[in-house]
Amino acid sequence: MNKVIKIVVTGPRGKMGREAIRMITNTKQFQLVGVIDRNNNGKGLSEIVSMEDQGQDCSVFTDVNQCLRETKPDCLLELSVADAAYEHALAAIQFGVRPVIGTTGLSQEQLADIEREANENKIGCIVAPNFAIGAVLMMKFAEMAAKHFPDVEIIEMHHDEKVDAPSGTALKTAEMIQRQRQEKQQGHPKEIEKLSGVRGGDFDGMKIHSIRLPGLVAHQQVLFGSVGETLTIRHDSYNRTSFMTGVKKAVETVMHVDSYIYGLENILE
Amino acid sequence: MNKVIKIVVTGPRGKMGREAIRMITNTKQFQLVGVIDRNNNGKGLSEIVSMEDQGQDCSVFTDVNQCLRETKPDCLLELSVADAAYEHALAAIQFGVRPVIGTTGLSQEQLADIEREANENKIGCIVAPNFAIGAVLMMKFAEMAAKHFPDVEIIEMHHDEKVDAPSGTALKTAEMIQRQRQEKQQGHPKEIEKLSGVRGGDFDGMKIHSIRLPGLVAHQQVLFGSVGETLTIRHDSYNRTSFMTGVKKAVETVMHVDSYIYGLENILE
Amino acid sequence: MNKVIKIVVTGPRGKMGREAIRMITNTKQFQLVGVIDRNNNGKGLSEIVSMEDQGQDCSVFTDVNQCLRETKPDCLLELSVADAAYEHALAAIQFGVRPVIGTTGLSQEQLADIEREANENKIGCIVAPNFAIGAVLMMKFAEMAAKHFPDVEIIEMHHDEKVDAPSGTALKTAEMIQRQRQEKQQGHPKEIEKLSGVRGGDFDGMKIHSIRLPGLVAHQQVLFGSVGETLTIRHDSYNRTSFMTGVKKAVETVMHVDSYIYGLENILE
Amino acid sequence: MNKVIKIVVTGPRGKMGREAIRMITNTKQFQLVGVIDRNNNGKGLSEIVSMEDQGQDCSVFTDVNQCLRETKPDCLLELSVADAAYEHALAAIQFGVRPVIGTTGLSQEQLADIEREANENKIGCIVAPNFAIGAVLMMKFAEMAAKHFPDVEIIEMHHDEKVDAPSGTALKTAEMIQRQRQEKQQGHPKEIEKLSGVRGGDFDGMKIHSIRLPGLVAHQQVLFGSVGETLTIRHDSYNRTSFMTGVKKAVETVMHVDSYIYGLENILE
Repeated sequence: MNKVIKIVVTGPRGKMGREAIRMITNTKQFQLVGVIDRNNNGKGLSEIVSMEDQGQDCSVFTDVNQCLRETKPDCLLELSVADAAYEHALAAIQFGVRPVIGTTGLSQEQLADIEREANENKIGCIVAPNFAIGAVLMMKFAEMAAKHFPDVEIIEMHHDEKVDAPSGTALKTAEMIQRQRQEKQQGHPKEIEKLSGVRGGDFDGMKIHSIRLPGLVAHQQVLFGSVGETLTIRHDSYNRTSFMTGVKKAVETVMHVDSYIYGLENILE
Repeated sequence: MNKVIKIVVTGPRGKMGREAIRMITNTKQFQLVGVIDRNNNGKGLSEIVSMEDQGQDCSVFTDVNQCLRETKPDCLLELSVADAAYEHALAAIQFGVRPVIGTTGLSQEQLADIEREANENKIGCIVAPNFAIGAVLMMKFAEMAAKHFPDVEIIEMHHDEKVDAPSGTALKTAEMIQRQRQEKQQGHPKEIEKLSGVRGGDFDGMKIHSIRLPGLVAHQQVLFGSVGETLTIRHDSYNRTSFMTGVKKAVETVMHVDSYIYGLENILE
Repeated sequence: MNKVIKIVVTGPRGKMGREAIRMITNTKQFQLVGVIDRNNNGKGLSEIVSMEDQGQDCSVFTDVNQCLRETKPDCLLELSVADAAYEHALAAIQFGVRPVIGTTGLSQEQLADIEREANENKIGCIVAPNFAIGAVLMMKFAEMAAKHFPDVEIIEMHHDEKVDAPSGTALKTAEMIQRQRQEKQQGHPKEIEKLSGVRGGDFDGMKIHSIRLPGLVAHQQVLFGSVGETLTIRHDSYNRTSFMTGVKKAVETVMHVDSYIYGLENILE
Repeated sequence: MNKVIKIVVTGPRGKMGREAIRMITNTKQFQLVGVIDRNNNGKGLSEIVSMEDQGQDCSVFTDVNQCLRETKPDCLLELSVADAAYEHALAAIQFGVRPVIGTTGLSQEQLADIEREANENKIGCIVAPNFAIGAVLMMKFAEMAAKHFPDVEIIEMHHDEKVDAPSGTALKTAEMIQRQRQEKQQGHPKEIEKLSGVRGGDFDGMKIHSIRLPGLVAHQQVLFGSVGETLTIRHDSYNRTSFMTGVKKAVETVMHVDSYIYGLENILE
């Protein structure tokens, strides 16, 4: 019934790229027609990544224009690095190919250029810095709850190989809550930390706590408290495959829009 | 700045009634002007309930009309029993007094009568079978998440003095999820219960589990699963005071509306 | 079959005292024979505390010796204040009455005196600064797990009326873990706090986090992480009645021992 | 300081085998000296498994005696299938090589033979059907807590590709709790299931609940309730690497014992 969507993937050797190739291979209405890799031009995909669980082979290209010309995809799934992503996205729009961009690190100017080109050419384009639908919903619900529950703490938990704390998702959640939450310095006004730092990091009067332990993957809970009750919204990400539901949703959606959309939350009605 | 809201409470000796009186007494912009009790006409409130934490006294009435005439309230907070609630609400609307109704068990006909009278007289009226804002948000978020995550199980946990399982909130949550969720028989198609009942109760292909233990109060989690991730929405109610945030919100809101509203979720924008 | 245990309670108007009186009244093999109160000598118990749920009345004494002489109890349940507790315990031992002491704040010297008197007179005596069996087990299990999992973080969560952070239980848990855990500075060696305090308070290389929100009561989880797995031990205390299981156990146990025991953990084999 | 432990692994192509090889390679005091595979005799390890993260190569043997003779290991890590395991273990004991057996499915008779041979020859031998230290501790703590908390429910959660419910670990936990728990039919005596199965599976009066959702890996919580409090013991297994801490512990321990030990719990003092 549905037409098959032909896809080119960039960054096929990266962690996201390999998961994406596996997902496309396992999705009936998707077809992988080519990959773009800065090296390995002219090889077959099976020569550059282990195809263990992956029946489908295809050609590797270094030049984006050649790739688009020869493979005639419907969608370019961009998972490489920021500067290449910018070039690939603009080329795709010129060819009438819809970009789905998961690459992070593009500058505001680069995104503005892509937005303008997509809109002027009426080519659907979706940019999503976070493809985990569960994480996106957690943030959305937290923002909604903050209107009614101004008392909130964020607890994010990651493996101990993560260097930075708090996580980007925790900070983004705090910013979204801040938009809706009536300003407030939480906790007891005379609060005493008998152990420095024990009350966590302060973000506009609310607290963020970062747990780091081996074994953990990527988890966050947002905990709201009010008289006699608490409301908890929690997301657990167990591995990178969690992004693929969002990637799939974005590829399906981009085929039916003719303008630029930023953020997975805006395609989850 | 805000005008004080004068309130009459019905069912003052019940558990909800006593909490409501305490909440009103502790809320600056609220004033308790009378209570309606089927016995005890003519007594003072302090003669019928322990006023331990509660400075304010007021008169007890058995007749709703006399009460409304003499105390001239802005709002009738109805927390007695279904049949009395019906009579009280209609009387209040006739007097131009806004009802907030937390009483459960009114029939569809009774609710329809109240709705018609409120709308015809342009008197704000709010009916809320569940005043816990956190529980209402949990159900709302669960409904929203179900659109994207068709795999879901509900785990509700209550003290072991509760006779029925599952809880009314669990069933209501399942119904709300059902409206959005694409139909699906969850779990492994060849699932085997080596211990009968271990997979829980089936509701349209999704599972509900009821935990009953001493110590527990009233808790529910809605657990959504998708490839590589889970999303959990959890509500913990620790005691009856949790209803008072919603009661307060309803009393404040009813003063600014001139029609009938059913469900706390509809006054939480 | 079992002989009824006759009990005197000290501090009957305090929160613990009132709960203890309710528990004794509801326990078949326990009998309340008197209370000691620094005021109210000669009154009846029902004159000084609301006996709402409590059928049993008894006499109030200010003088401990008079009380012990007249009521001839088996056990003195001490729930008043440190200095009175010291005097009451020594008097009880002289009368051959077994003390169960929940009062906190006694000095090392006072405890040493009580221990010596109990042991010399072969009178059972139990001192328990924490009567919540669940909390005591949580700490014990955490200590045991720490031997195998050196990576651990403690998250304690309380209502926002608590001034101090971390809680006494969290600190005690950390000390017990420290005894078994191989020393280690946890987390990434190059860890960066982009928000000061976000990684919590440091206790000998492990982290403690304190959450403070309205609605919460008293909760703690101890989270151990190792390659590919986590182990969590969590205690939730919903109200003061949680102490009564431990008080009951201590009263029952003290009747069968003839020496001094410190810590509920030592009577939970 | 510590002597290097030389290890032979059986079942090197299985999931456990591959993880074990990776663990040995990454552990300084361990050395992989050979693998036993029913095929592939005479090949190198790198020819039969992808050595991606694994520097060390070694020889593949089909005959256990030849392998033990040529590689002179200290320990045989048995991870193949039941019948082969039996033969390998007996051969190892004859050669004075200590077996660590993770293979499941050996009969009582086979285990009895191995036990007798190990004890008679004073060769340390450890059999562990479950190598996840966290899971073993969870069961041990649950058993200990059951003495004081007779009210308990088990909630186990797995991915929806699991066919059987409840999990083996849940059943084993229930059996261990049963040994200590005073018999009791839990829940309200007049309990009503408005939805059949909602109260879970009954095991000697306590309830077990099985959750099955995509995204989940292998999780279990044991929830104890008592007046005013709950105690929760939870284990989360995120992937097969979680077994390796236990395998490592078993290999280290087997070098210092000279008899047969069954169950990881017995080497975790």
